[in-house]
Amino acid sequence: MPVNDSSYDREAVRRVLDQARAEGRTSLTAPEGRLVVEAYGISTPGEGLATSADEAVALAERIGLPVVLKIVSPDILHKTEAGGVLVGLHTAEAVATGYQTIIDNARAYKADAKIVGVQVQQQLDSGHEVIVGTVTDQTFGKVVAFGLGGVLVEVLKDVTFRLAPADTETALSMIDGIAAAEILRGVRGAEPANREILADLIVRLSALVTDFPELAEVDLNPVLATSTGATAVDVRILVDDNAAEQPYRFTDEEILASMNRIMRPASVAVIGASAETGKIGNSVMKNLVNGGYQGEIYPINPKATEILDRKAFKSIADVPGPVDVAVFAIPAKFVPAALEEVGAKGVAGAILIPSGFGETGNHELQAEVVAIARRHGVRILGPNIYGYYYTPENLSATFCTPYDVKGGVALSSQSGGIGMAILGFSRSAQMGVSSIVGVGNKSDIDEDDLLTFFESDPNTDLIAMHLEDLKDGRSFAETARRVSKTKPVIVLKAGRTSMGARAASSHTGALAGDDKVYDDILRSNGVIRAPGLNDLLEYARGIPLLPTPQGENVVIITGAGGSGVLLSDACVDNGLTLMEIPSDLDEAFRKFIPPFGAAGNPVDITGGEPPATYRNTIALGLSDPRIHSLILGYWHTIVTPPMVFAELVVDVVNEFRAKGIHKPVVASLAGDVEVEQASEHLYRHGIVAYPYTTEKPVAVLGAKYRWARSAGLLGD
Amino acid sequence: MPVNDSSYDREAVRRVLDQARAEGRTSLTAPEGRLVVEAYGISTPGEGLATSADEAVALAERIGLPVVLKIVSPDILHKTEAGGVLVGLHTAEAVATGYQTIIDNARAYKADAKIVGVQVQQQLDSGHEVIVGTVTDQTFGKVVAFGLGGVLVEVLKDVTFRLAPADTETALSMIDGIAAAEILRGVRGAEPANREILADLIVRLSALVTDFPELAEVDLNPVLATSTGATAVDVRILVDDNAAEQPYRFTDEEILASMNRIMRPASVAVIGASAETGKIGNSVMKNLVNGGYQGEIYPINPKATEILDRKAFKSIADVPGPVDVAVFAIPAKFVPAALEEVGAKGVAGAILIPSGFGETGNHELQAEVVAIARRHGVRILGPNIYGYYYTPENLSATFCTPYDVKGGVALSSQSGGIGMAILGFSRSAQMGVSSIVGVGNKSDIDEDDLLTFFESDPNTDLIAMHLEDLKDGRSFAETARRVSKTKPVIVLKAGRTSMGARAASSHTGALAGDDKVYDDILRSNGVIRAPGLNDLLEYARGIPLLPTPQGENVVIITGAGGSGVLLSDACVDNGLTLMEIPSDLDEAFRKFIPPFGAAGNPVDITGGEPPATYRNTIALGLSDPRIHSLILGYWHTIVTPPMVFAELVVDVVNEFRAKGIHKPVVASLAGDVEVEQASEHLYRHGIVAYPYTTEKPVAVLGAKYRWARSAGLLGD
Repeated sequence: MPVNDSSYDREAVRRVLDQARAEGRTSLTAPEGRLVVEAYGISTPGEGLATSADEAVALAERIGLPVVLKIVSPDILHKTEAGGVLVGLHTAEAVATGYQTIIDNARAYKADAKIVGVQVQQQLDSGHEVIVGTVTDQTFGKVVAFGLGGVLVEVLKDVTFRLAPADTETALSMIDGIAAAEILRGVRGAEPANREILADLIVRLSALVTDFPELAEVDLNPVLATSTGATAVDVRILVDDNAAEQPYRFTDEEILASMNRIMRPASVAVIGASAETGKIGNSVMKNLVNGGYQGEIYPINPKATEILDRKAFKSIADVPGPVDVAVFAIPAKFVPAALEEVGAKGVAGAILIPSGFGETGNHELQAEVVAIARRHGVRILGPNIYGYYYTPENLSATFCTPYDVKGGVALSSQSGGIGMAILGFSRSAQMGVSSIVGVGNKSDIDEDDLLTFFESDPNTDLIAMHLEDLKDGRSFAETARRVSKTKPVIVLKAGRTSMGARAASSHTGALAGDDKVYDDILRSNGVIRAPGLNDLLEYARGIPLLPTPQGENVVIITGAGGSGVLLSDACVDNGLTLMEIPSDLDEAFRKFIPPFGAAGNPVDITGGEPPATYRNTIALGLSDPRIHSLILGYWHTIVTPPMVFAELVVDVVNEFRAKGIHKPVVASLAGDVEVEQASEHLYRHGIVAYPYTTEKPVAVLGAKYRWARSAGLLGD
Repeated sequence: MPVNDSSYDREAVRRVLDQARAEGRTSLTAPEGRLVVEAYGISTPGEGLATSADEAVALAERIGLPVVLKIVSPDILHKTEAGGVLVGLHTAEAVATGYQTIIDNARAYKADAKIVGVQVQQQLDSGHEVIVGTVTDQTFGKVVAFGLGGVLVEVLKDVTFRLAPADTETALSMIDGIAAAEILRGVRGAEPANREILADLIVRLSALVTDFPELAEVDLNPVLATSTGATAVDVRILVDDNAAEQPYRFTDEEILASMNRIMRPASVAVIGASAETGKIGNSVMKNLVNGGYQGEIYPINPKATEILDRKAFKSIADVPGPVDVAVFAIPAKFVPAALEEVGAKGVAGAILIPSGFGETGNHELQAEVVAIARRHGVRILGPNIYGYYYTPENLSATFCTPYDVKGGVALSSQSGGIGMAILGFSRSAQMGVSSIVGVGNKSDIDEDDLLTFFESDPNTDLIAMHLEDLKDGRSFAETARRVSKTKPVIVLKAGRTSMGARAASSHTGALAGDDKVYDDILRSNGVIRAPGLNDLLEYARGIPLLPTPQGENVVIITGAGGSGVLLSDACVDNGLTLMEIPSDLDEAFRKFIPPFGAAGNPVDITGGEPPATYRNTIALGLSDPRIHSLILGYWHTIVTPPMVFAELVVDVVNEFRAKGIHKPVVASLAGDVEVEQASEHLYRHGIVAYPYTTEKPVAVLGAKYRWARSAGLLGD
């Protein structure tokens, strides 16, 4: 049932809201609420008075069948006794006939009774109780919620959220996305809810709050959902003009114009550059110079003439040519004045390393700085950051150490400590990185700007972000939805267990714990969520190495039966599908493995097998087009030592790559310490491999699959 | 309400079961079922006919209040009209009075009516629907289940299991242990269920199936639980004499007598010892000799006179002195004959390395071997194993490589591959190990025997086990319950996601997925479950190093605010309690940290602080007796480099240890690659520290807490 936009009666809603505003009310009355949702085609339990059979039919059709008919007469008190009540009228004909029957019965019962008419009421004696609501989330704006109704679901908090407006597909994903979804499909012979009609109601409600953002919170609780309808039994609406406020947004063109100059600057000025070791202004200079940055570097220091063999300037105003980026290495209190000069110079980005702004409670100073920047068209990164790296330009605009392993992973962190962990892990794992960015207080540039730049950046294949909040979650989600179609977006959302201390003025509001809202909205917009810091880093490192799988069929080939069981567990944990091996393929595997080995999936080649058994089974897994991914479980034996295994796997995978066959291959290595070197060898050749764990390789493959699915890249 | 054992009417149950058996039935009729559970004091909806007020009161008291009274008279059809129905009678007095009122009303209504009496019915118009049931689990035997009733819970599978018989404490833990437990406590003004009465019903049902093990499955579904009662509305019972079978068990004394000889043998024979490199019989000999084992080593080989400078014997019968252990390195088919000789020699343990038994489908051979061993009083380890290590005796009775880092961790694995991963991880992490044991096919010696030995072993502080199944889960659970009071028992249960393909002949049976049963029973008997292989290994490595915490108050001290947030997330994930810092303690912390730092918890000392700030705050955390554990978040800066941090932490922790103050301290290090060395330094000194992860140190601390709680070692 497609929603017909023109069916929305905006004027009716406007009249109600104008009235409420005129009276200074923050909530609507029940009849007002009903009127508002009905104006958007949401059914409420209908009723009305008919004075003819035609009117009864018209009413019934407007209300929705089935209906109950009841005689309305001041002279008939015992309606049932009088034959004045008919229930379960499912067709227009039944209503028309029923109307006449009731009138006839009434007249027969009491010939002189004054008959006012027949009340037509929607019959609501069955159906699933669900809740549909909307809140105005401080991060995401208008958010629509769906869950089962009733106290049990309230206790279990089985509810799901999406950005409003939601389209039909999104609304259907909500209905299917709650833990108890099976209930709505009808279990133990119960009547199922009509998914399409319920989705339509979600679409309509989310359209309503989008059109009228002053509708701060709406509860339709319960909605009775049957196989033929969905009716909002109770409607509760809170209004608040502040709920209609929108955050300021730059256009993508504006973002890219600035970010391109910031990430690939022709020239960088260091405000507060210093020759003195231990000073931040010295570390930044050293990192720019030693990192190999080839653009112009301008030290700015009123008291120096030369720093690290570069001519120093008293003010950025004195620099002869244009400047793209100014890195601030001066105390917070000097930033406003310096930023005025930076702005006047036409700099694209001010990199505010200093702390002492919002994070220490100095919100005024931060606001002042943002205002100066906005006035000059300067974008600010920070304040309170370690700086940023962009390896394609050999740019290490940071007081940390340079990073030089180039590659496709772009990372950002909201915290300096986490930034250092990113740097250390990357260096230790030799992870190829395009960029590491500290966003700190996010007074201006935030993850949304970074996503937009990294999307356009040919040097970036994957974006991994640590964040504690989002300034404009809606914008981030919308950008992520687009970007993630081509590049995986991994997010570690910290603070996920601290439920928002939200004033629970509505039922939906009370259910909307921060993390559940983040989780549902990020995931439904293509973001892969990392459960922890180490996962963020391992996903970032592994996902770009794995080719995108062409389908869901995963096969485990293992030398250790025990690893096979644990790898299977990990597949289920990570939403991976162990392929049902067709009999011809089973037969083919059996040719290579001992008679007491187990074909099926896992393919258990058994311990003590020579390299050829691994090679043959892996080659079969790569060659058969019905298999889409391989998980290898290696068992260290004298017959096939770790490096022999690693080299044969690299060989056979390369052999197939040369033939144009690219499938994700991950490996778990069980054995003595030599498996560490073997795992490294595999990883260096694009096979995501770990020693002493069956969980990690499968988790990385699972993350790759989640991305491939949401990007629509998996085959049927 | 304590259960009065003598209140059980065993004879009544026996009569019903004898009748059913005589008729060859596998299920009881509804009245039989009702009779059986009533014999154990479980209420069913009671009713009966009273012909006097006294009888009515007696009936009501037997049935349970409140009751409904109804006139029984062939001459009164409209009972209500006649004043012949009274509902909600909550006291004996009300019943007595009510009886008379009804009789009087009836006589007044129709003086000549024939009055048969008054029907006394239990009033069951309210209450929570719950399910209580029992199944006969192939691993654990009699298992009792509890969950909410109704279709929603069936969909969400919110049900919990314990061994039967369950005591009152256990039964209460079940009621509190389901996800929807809050429902039973009464939400939104609903009447709560009476926990004690419900627990009593669980205790009674579990006693019933323990006394009558032929009761294969019992469903009480639903049980209506109110604030004053619990009534089994429907009773369904399946009977099966096979369900009464008990597995064979050795006594603890028998187990220890054998295991002590096996783990600390004075002499070891190697059946199939070989001088030829590459043979298993050669590897075993080398490992025994090179591992430094000081007992007698007897190579057995009909064709050799000397192997590795040890005199070889044609048969174990030829060995002059007694032999404690025989390691078999011969093909499976030769095992029975050799085992006869081994048995005749009075060997305590036969270590069956060879494969080719049950795991390849050769169950007959395995059964034959077990029968031979049982006949001779020999215990079998294996077959199909890598052997075993016991480092206090320098014993490496395995074809793998020797292991020599001695310590308190005992490990076992059901799979050879996982055993190799244990070995490699241990060596790589330099984990101090007392024993590593492969149990393989577990034809005889299993985890239960190992637990019993390790409990008594002064060299073992913690037991970590990989297992795919348990031969006798009940015995294991009972042993683990006892052992875990003094030594942590960590279990990685593989195959947890493959739900048992159980024939769902009862409701409870259908809900009893393998893993949920394992999970509930292992946890409720003190076992710490590791979610994955790496967790098993990290828990094993870390838990023994941490002192047992004296209470729940955990404090995070962090240099990086971002790490603090992630560490807090991890605390919630791991069930740890972030201490509410009292104001005097808050004040004390504030003295050491910058004004813009955050006291509270996490204590955010802010980045860029010198070593003294870490030292002072950590010392405060160790000295204040209200704080029980510390989690440190380190941020790599020039001011406090990684090794400076690591050394100061070790210093200050040692300082307090010297004063007798032992608290668990774990650390997450965020920084460049130098944090790896710093983490190792910390770990070597008993501070569980990891680089690049906030999750792992907290997970290990969380596991330590789970153990300390279940062992009853935490303070109030």
